[in-house]
Amino acid sequence: MENRQRGGGGIENGHDEESPVNREAFEIEHNEHKNREEEEEELGLSIEQIFDGKRVPSWQEQLTFRAFVVSFVLGIMFSVIVMKFNLTTGIIPSLNVSAGLLGFFFVKTWTKFLEKSNLLKQPFTRQENTVIQTCVVAASDIAFSGGFGNYLFAMSDAVAKQATEANNPQNIKNPKLSWMIGFLFLVSFLGLFSLVPLRKIMIIDYKLIYPSGTATAHLINSFHTPLGAKMAKKQVKTLGKFFSFSFLWGFFQWFFTTSEGCGFQYFPVFGLKAYDNRFYFDFSASYVGIGMICPHIVNVSVLLGAILSWGIMWPLIATRKGHWYDASLKSTSMHGLQGYRVFIAIAMILGDGLYNFCLVLRRTLFALVRQRRNKDTSINPTNDRTSPTAEPLSYDDQRRTELFLKDQIPLSIAIGGYVATAAISIIALPHIFPQLKWYFILVPYIFAPVLAFCNAYGTGLTDWSLASTYGKLAIFTIGAWAGASHGGVLAGLAACGVMMSIVNTASDLMQDFKTGYLTLASPRSMFISQVIGTAMGCVISPCVFWLFYKAFDDIGLPTSEYPSPYATVYRNMAILGVDGFSSLPKHCLTLCYVFFAAAILINLVRTLVGKRVARFIPLPMAMAIPFYLGSYFAIDMFLGTVILFVWQRMNKAKADKFAPAVASGMICGDGIWSLPASMLALAGVKPPICMKFLSRGTNQQVDNFLEKLS
Amino acid sequence: MENRQRGGGGIENGHDEESPVNREAFEIEHNEHKNREEEEEELGLSIEQIFDGKRVPSWQEQLTFRAFVVSFVLGIMFSVIVMKFNLTTGIIPSLNVSAGLLGFFFVKTWTKFLEKSNLLKQPFTRQENTVIQTCVVAASDIAFSGGFGNYLFAMSDAVAKQATEANNPQNIKNPKLSWMIGFLFLVSFLGLFSLVPLRKIMIIDYKLIYPSGTATAHLINSFHTPLGAKMAKKQVKTLGKFFSFSFLWGFFQWFFTTSEGCGFQYFPVFGLKAYDNRFYFDFSASYVGIGMICPHIVNVSVLLGAILSWGIMWPLIATRKGHWYDASLKSTSMHGLQGYRVFIAIAMILGDGLYNFCLVLRRTLFALVRQRRNKDTSINPTNDRTSPTAEPLSYDDQRRTELFLKDQIPLSIAIGGYVATAAISIIALPHIFPQLKWYFILVPYIFAPVLAFCNAYGTGLTDWSLASTYGKLAIFTIGAWAGASHGGVLAGLAACGVMMSIVNTASDLMQDFKTGYLTLASPRSMFISQVIGTAMGCVISPCVFWLFYKAFDDIGLPTSEYPSPYATVYRNMAILGVDGFSSLPKHCLTLCYVFFAAAILINLVRTLVGKRVARFIPLPMAMAIPFYLGSYFAIDMFLGTVILFVWQRMNKAKADKFAPAVASGMICGDGIWSLPASMLALAGVKPPICMKFLSRGTNQQVDNFLEKLS
Repeated sequence: MENRQRGGGGIENGHDEESPVNREAFEIEHNEHKNREEEEEELGLSIEQIFDGKRVPSWQEQLTFRAFVVSFVLGIMFSVIVMKFNLTTGIIPSLNVSAGLLGFFFVKTWTKFLEKSNLLKQPFTRQENTVIQTCVVAASDIAFSGGFGNYLFAMSDAVAKQATEANNPQNIKNPKLSWMIGFLFLVSFLGLFSLVPLRKIMIIDYKLIYPSGTATAHLINSFHTPLGAKMAKKQVKTLGKFFSFSFLWGFFQWFFTTSEGCGFQYFPVFGLKAYDNRFYFDFSASYVGIGMICPHIVNVSVLLGAILSWGIMWPLIATRKGHWYDASLKSTSMHGLQGYRVFIAIAMILGDGLYNFCLVLRRTLFALVRQRRNKDTSINPTNDRTSPTAEPLSYDDQRRTELFLKDQIPLSIAIGGYVATAAISIIALPHIFPQLKWYFILVPYIFAPVLAFCNAYGTGLTDWSLASTYGKLAIFTIGAWAGASHGGVLAGLAACGVMMSIVNTASDLMQDFKTGYLTLASPRSMFISQVIGTAMGCVISPCVFWLFYKAFDDIGLPTSEYPSPYATVYRNMAILGVDGFSSLPKHCLTLCYVFFAAAILINLVRTLVGKRVARFIPLPMAMAIPFYLGSYFAIDMFLGTVILFVWQRMNKAKADKFAPAVASGMICGDGIWSLPASMLALAGVKPPICMKFLSRGTNQQVDNFLEKLS
Repeated sequence: MENRQRGGGGIENGHDEESPVNREAFEIEHNEHKNREEEEEELGLSIEQIFDGKRVPSWQEQLTFRAFVVSFVLGIMFSVIVMKFNLTTGIIPSLNVSAGLLGFFFVKTWTKFLEKSNLLKQPFTRQENTVIQTCVVAASDIAFSGGFGNYLFAMSDAVAKQATEANNPQNIKNPKLSWMIGFLFLVSFLGLFSLVPLRKIMIIDYKLIYPSGTATAHLINSFHTPLGAKMAKKQVKTLGKFFSFSFLWGFFQWFFTTSEGCGFQYFPVFGLKAYDNRFYFDFSASYVGIGMICPHIVNVSVLLGAILSWGIMWPLIATRKGHWYDASLKSTSMHGLQGYRVFIAIAMILGDGLYNFCLVLRRTLFALVRQRRNKDTSINPTNDRTSPTAEPLSYDDQRRTELFLKDQIPLSIAIGGYVATAAISIIALPHIFPQLKWYFILVPYIFAPVLAFCNAYGTGLTDWSLASTYGKLAIFTIGAWAGASHGGVLAGLAACGVMMSIVNTASDLMQDFKTGYLTLASPRSMFISQVIGTAMGCVISPCVFWLFYKAFDDIGLPTSEYPSPYATVYRNMAILGVDGFSSLPKHCLTLCYVFFAAAILINLVRTLVGKRVARFIPLPMAMAIPFYLGSYFAIDMFLGTVILFVWQRMNKAKADKFAPAVASGMICGDGIWSLPASMLALAGVKPPICMKFLSRGTNQQVDNFLEKLS
């Protein structure tokens, strides 16, 4: 069994609000595609004028069989990758670019092949490309919103036994393929229905930006122009090169990890003392890749957080051992040092989440109010970012609006679908979780559409999805409502899943509508693609999780290669919600208040000082990520950011064009390697060699021992 | 104490004929500089026309103080590097390019600085650059011809105790700083005097090519044109970058080598089974660099030799254990498997050496005869490479000849110097080696000038110095003459030193005269620079050797980081010469005959098939190198050649311009790291960490042991 300790501990934070990482990552991509767009605009033509000669296929034609085959394959691939990240650190990079790029590559190769054999019936269009991208993202998104790295896995025995509270059968539900698939089918489709009727308002009337969706659309548009296709080919080649490198590197590393404590993950690059404080480079290609995708400030924040926590705070608190907490406690006990790590991180995450929730809510409300005021001045209302004077519709906008409004999705389907799905899940869910009474589900379902709208609107403005914040809200409210004695921990976690799924899917759908709007894809084909993708995800994700779960039997333990940090964080939040603060070690609560306040304060400063200065102020959310896990992935990511920085210095244009491809290749290759790795583990194949790192003293003893042995 | 096993064993072959590696390496550089020269020729000017405006300083002006300061520093640097290679594998890359480049860089920086502060009295000229290059090469060459990696160290106890024969005080002389310096002063200057009177014949009359000298001259000329200076700056920057990288990499590796069996040198990249057959990548930056400098065919030959020996032959012979040789023998015994390794390698080296000796001798004689015939047709006789019709002297040749003939070195100094030095060493040497009777020295000194002429002429034609072949000749003849009972082994080795020094220095001097001829440096300043450089080398080299010898106390042992392979090979040759073939294990002599014949045959085929096909036929000399040492450095070098190949494919011009700089940087950085490394070892500072590689089974036991321990 391959046991790599990825830092140890148990769980803290990482990818939670998904967005501080994604949002700015997309800003980067956004700029990139702007450049390309500019190239074409130099020819004096707008995008839709360039595409003018090409017929837009009907919505049925957009939904091809080949598109779903490719989507299924990529869906599995990305689910594996997302699952790996769920279970290692919880930081999940945005894979939309890779999905768009690889989707293009697969179908283009296929159609090229058919073209040569004169069998091509239907050419490959950007609409079909959009359908694939939408479907893949919908499928692999379930791997995140399904909670395998947080709420769902937090219910399990493995995570529960790390805490002393709520460690009873009533608050534990171990993963099983059957109930997981059922649960996902029950909760994942509601979000799709909840916002469908509002798409015209949000996309055409409010003209919301949806940075991710827009960036993806530009990417796809550019692929289908001759210049873009050439660039895409080069990018795919780069991606492929780094994919292979990263995959082979993962494979190579495997040979040296015959047991726990072996392999590159234990390489004390900065010495053994630094290693003990989890400062080391773990040679993970994916986190270097993530570092290259994330904006510099995110990586710097992560490193700062690592230094603050593992470099300063934990060693200081450790000196209070015996005073602040019982010295006899195991190192993984939540009543000891581990408690400080987990709860201070939670405090920072909550502080950051709360601040951003308020900020987004405020902006949403302001924008809505202004929108309403401008309603009468023109049929083309401007959003809060452009000036309120009415502009004539551009050729592009005219054409896009026309096609967006052509294929309608009847309101009856939306409302009927929502009510029917809600009814089924209210009846069925309590059979899966007896602790989750039917009224614990009904109440969220009543509020959900409103929250989904808030989130979709907020995402449209900032690209910052607050799904997990809404989920945490459900943990605390429903958990407290149910109470500890009635399985409140489990009820809270399940409710979190219900809430997160709706809110997250809704904002995703709207992103995709924006992409579809910009690529002239039909809303109807978008919607169907999302439904099919979600259905795929509901089957693929639990299976992928099951693979990991069966292959690595120490999954979820702090010492495992897959510590699944957020599962512990979420479970402890649930316990906190149910039990109150009684379980915290000494002074921990004070420190939590300090960091909660600090997170809000830093964010406030970031908002007030303006963009020029704000770029140099660290993000509290990113800083909290390494508090629990250690610094090793912060080192990886920092290396990635340094590589990108140097590359940008040397050749900005090239770096901007190829860095996302390089990063995607590294992320995907390493991620995909975990598929054969878990297969090998399941088959009981063990690596042959152990690469060990020993201190001089220990090595002396080992050498003596080995001499006696031979 | 840092003990890295570099393969194990003891000594076999590597850099012996110095030339199969160097010769073709210089062909590469030669081409490079041709390109640069072509650039300037495009301007319609010959080299000396470009330099026409610049005054040529007098010979006294060429010998500046700053030149010798820089030479001294670089001399130490390159002596350390050469010494390291002497003691690890015996493969010594050509460092002339680095010497030229770094000499230029140092003095240019210094003069730039003076220029800015208006203190510059004398501008930096290409003549001064040539003086530095000559001095540095002369100094660092002593590190090779001083025999620290072969004949001199072969006299020591450490090497002697690996063989059962001649392991008595009469045939052993341990290194000591005092006698080593004395010995070098006695033997190193003779070569300088022996050929000085013939310089006009060889350079001007015979117009010998001396590829290395010509390449170096082109390099220096190009540095001193504006275009060349810019290129040199870029190259120096590249060199510096890779120097730092390689140095830091060596430093980093050090931390993980707390005891034997620890560190990157033990990395079983291809698995443990391959590692046992010494197939692994040892992460040595210098050998990757050497691979980049050596022509592809050399690297491929080395790898082929490694596969043939360690992949096929040794495992096959090992199965005859108990039949062909005593199974109870230690693995390092010359009567066991080790004997096959050493003696088959010796056979191949001797076969290759003999063939090339005959070939060069034949060409030398032919050329001399033709020269004599053409003598009367013109004052400007052509060499054997150009057509025999007389051409008018070009402007460049006129100017070069004029300056070359201006400063004469009186014949009396040459003859007087030779006789005086010879007399002193005939008297003094027997005091150092009582086994070496005075007539054992007198006889070589009578023949030496002839042999030196042969070698200098041959080198002029092919760049292939046969110094070590002449040395081996001395080992066998003088050894057999003295006889085993009279310390014949030691006498043979000492005579080898006497012979090698003369022959090697003579050809080096002539190379430098050619360089001087092409850069308009005075022969007189060249000669003085050589004398000073040689004197420096006679002090620097023994000191550097002493540092290694004292710092690493297992030096010369097969298991050491510094196995000093050629020391074992040379000592065994001496034993063979004195004792005959009685000591060889079963069938070993037959195999030796086969490989001796094969070496000659392969060379014959190479000569006959013509250059086009010959490039694809491996070099027996290069193939023999890994027979004894194992394949690890073959892997390093092959990696280097692959990198170069890919680079050349991607950008031929850039690769040709910068690959020598990259390679030099990697070689020098890693080489120089051995200076602080031996300082640390001397100071008793031990690395803190051990990176160990264990098989699954052993690891299980170690883990159990460690658990008990804690």
